[in-house]
Amino acid sequence: MRAKSFSGMACSIAGALEAIGDRWGFLLLRDLTLGLSRFDEFQSSTDIPAQTLSDRLKHLESTGLLARRRYQERPPRDEYALTPKGRDLWMVLAALREWGDRWRAHGTTAPPLDMIDRDSGNPLELAVVDAKTRRPVKAERIRVKAGRGADMRMKRRLSSGAMRRPELHR
Amino acid sequence: MRAKSFSGMACSIAGALEAIGDRWGFLLLRDLTLGLSRFDEFQSSTDIPAQTLSDRLKHLESTGLLARRRYQERPPRDEYALTPKGRDLWMVLAALREWGDRWRAHGTTAPPLDMIDRDSGNPLELAVVDAKTRRPVKAERIRVKAGRGADMRMKRRLSSGAMRRPELHR
Repeated sequence: MRAKSFSGMACSIAGALEAIGDRWGFLLLRDLTLGLSRFDEFQSSTDIPAQTLSDRLKHLESTGLLARRRYQERPPRDEYALTPKGRDLWMVLAALREWGDRWRAHGTTAPPLDMIDRDSGNPLELAVVDAKTRRPVKAERIRVKAGRGADMRMKRRLSSGAMRRPELHR
Repeated sequence: MRAKSFSGMACSIAGALEAIGDRWGFLLLRDLTLGLSRFDEFQSSTDIPAQTLSDRLKHLESTGLLARRRYQERPPRDEYALTPKGRDLWMVLAALREWGDRWRAHGTTAPPLDMIDRDSGNPLELAVVDAKTRRPVKAERIRVKAGRGADMRMKRRLSSGAMRRPELHR
């Protein structure tokens, strides 16, 4: 499926990308998050070639993001559902969607999908909050630092980039 | 670089993935967000093959995520910095990192990178907030619906998946 594994890089981003696999993996996670579950549904949603789809579903199963269930024996037919680990990627998909909405990367006239509050109907969006108080924090206050699991490379990235690190606020 | 373009899918997630390119694109965006700017810094950070690195930098420039600046003429050397559009992807990276931290996808003993509040030093994390009031909203209240830009496929995904759509809360 690819030349180089992204696991073993001591980076949570690389590890997440390894679990997802490639760009088709992201689109399948989108469809699974929206509730699609069958091979032909994924095909008609994405126009993904059948062999590629089969490979990517196997990959997502092998990395624990989805579970396969046989729902018919003759002919054999499986359906797929996200595991809790796979479902937990929804925030990654939301962040990609919001960026694509802001920069009109959807290529159409307006956002194709809205995230709303079930109770109030208000639009929802991602924000950064204090992990303890749950209060939103302005982007200019965000800083990064080496975590307990930082290896030499992470420390080098942080020190090399320190003076040129862009502010995160838009 | 790849067989199929993800633009023209009328999906903000697909459009964002097209702009980023592939998994190397994500790692380069990580490094640029941390402040790395030079070819050899990206190489030593990621072990990416030189030709692949060159291709991916060109791709990120062509999709408007980074800008190239010549800082030395003999021999010619360029440095790279995120544009506002590229910098704005930091929340996607944060979401991938948080997921990798939660599921120990980093493959090491503890999270390699922490996001903290400059002022209080408290850990920060992503959350979903009401876009108007900025108040956090519990995950079980999140719903999706067709946006004004939804095409037939998006509407079909939403209707096919409606009964099987997983709750988003962990």
